[in-house]
Amino acid sequence: MKVVIIGSGNVATHIAKALHKANVQVSQIWSYHYENASLLAKEVNADAINELSQIDTDATICLIAVKDDAIAEIIPALQNFKGIVAHTSGSVSIDIFAGKVERYGVLYPLQTFSKTNAIDFSNIPLCLEAGDEKTLAVLRRLASALSTDVVEIESEKRKMLHLAAVFACNFTNHLYALAQDLLVDNKIDFDLLRPLIAETANKVQHELPKNVQTGPAIRNDLQTLKKQEELLKKQPNLLEIYRTLSESIKKSR
Amino acid sequence: MKVVIIGSGNVATHIAKALHKANVQVSQIWSYHYENASLLAKEVNADAINELSQIDTDATICLIAVKDDAIAEIIPALQNFKGIVAHTSGSVSIDIFAGKVERYGVLYPLQTFSKTNAIDFSNIPLCLEAGDEKTLAVLRRLASALSTDVVEIESEKRKMLHLAAVFACNFTNHLYALAQDLLVDNKIDFDLLRPLIAETANKVQHELPKNVQTGPAIRNDLQTLKKQEELLKKQPNLLEIYRTLSESIKKSR
Repeated sequence: MKVVIIGSGNVATHIAKALHKANVQVSQIWSYHYENASLLAKEVNADAINELSQIDTDATICLIAVKDDAIAEIIPALQNFKGIVAHTSGSVSIDIFAGKVERYGVLYPLQTFSKTNAIDFSNIPLCLEAGDEKTLAVLRRLASALSTDVVEIESEKRKMLHLAAVFACNFTNHLYALAQDLLVDNKIDFDLLRPLIAETANKVQHELPKNVQTGPAIRNDLQTLKKQEELLKKQPNLLEIYRTLSESIKKSR
Repeated sequence: MKVVIIGSGNVATHIAKALHKANVQVSQIWSYHYENASLLAKEVNADAINELSQIDTDATICLIAVKDDAIAEIIPALQNFKGIVAHTSGSVSIDIFAGKVERYGVLYPLQTFSKTNAIDFSNIPLCLEAGDEKTLAVLRRLASALSTDVVEIESEKRKMLHLAAVFACNFTNHLYALAQDLLVDNKIDFDLLRPLIAETANKVQHELPKNVQTGPAIRNDLQTLKKQEELLKKQPNLLEIYRTLSESIKKSR
């Protein structure tokens, strides 16, 4: 199996490295920024290419790991590619390929990637979808080389999964950031919160979140809720979020 | 050192067990529910007592680990106690003791406890405050037997820390629960989100949350934001939270 990677951002970088580590050949890397493609190519023993027309037409799979908006611009340049074209996006439908390439699919890794954090790919859920069964089988073979958690999931469900991930990851990190603000304003070290953050995530690894909700809102402890709103009276943004989430927790009781 | 524990809930249970494990004698346990006190007492080789008047007046410390609202009701019953009286609450001021007992303080463990989850106490931040220096020294000795992370923090700062913990723990868990709802509604297994939740918390163990924010709102990816709002149009509660948090993330750019 030979893979071409389109992109040099976080997802492209982590996938390229994971493939290389799994002894799957990454033959070429293309990126809007040739220099980035070149740096990544060196790390995984691939060739950086300047033009999409230089693509290795013998490669098995071309993985498009670029910003959602850019996927549609890439596809027309891959008309002569004989292998499978797949994107890695959570929110873009598989239909984006229909009528434009012959064999196509999706390989969506459900994880948050940053350039600095090394990630063990082996337990990342890889969500697959393909235009036909044969293509699905090839994508499954590729995915299985990377992770033990490979699932098939269609575009409409994948969109909902991606949305759920926004709540569980992006919004969650923003709450950490708001907590950071509160601590900085009061000259308290963020370190104090780290064990709590770790344990909060750890709890739901074996339990369902609904069963382990704690805090004043779920207890309907109106006195504490009122006192905490008072502490936020000079920060309308935090107060609005405090009220909105507390109300939502109360409704879930 | 001999400790009396007031309460038999999550905090009382975890502290009693951690003290017992650290070879600090837990001599008595009192609770509103004698049966619970009795069960916990057995586990830590203590006596359950029926009435606060039976308290061992020779004990070094009496730790009040009950609901915030109940602390004020307990204090008058401890007038004859000669040792240190301390509560474990994040949001109740130390002033609650002033003029009512002679030696007093606060020992607030910054962690989320549930009955089922075993927790390693040794890296939980223990936040101390005391009415006088001598009392502080004793509390520090007790806390150091339990954890390597002992900090002194006054009531006003502790309240802000507790509020930050509501954002980083209670609200975060609620976001996990909302993600769980979205998945259940779409017949998707919550398991798929668990590695993402773990990595999101893991990332901020060494980075500050502001530096690792990802997702459509921080990229100002208006197209994805609009599409995701569309997916939530039949769930006004989720839509409101989606909009409120996305706006807040955009403001933080």
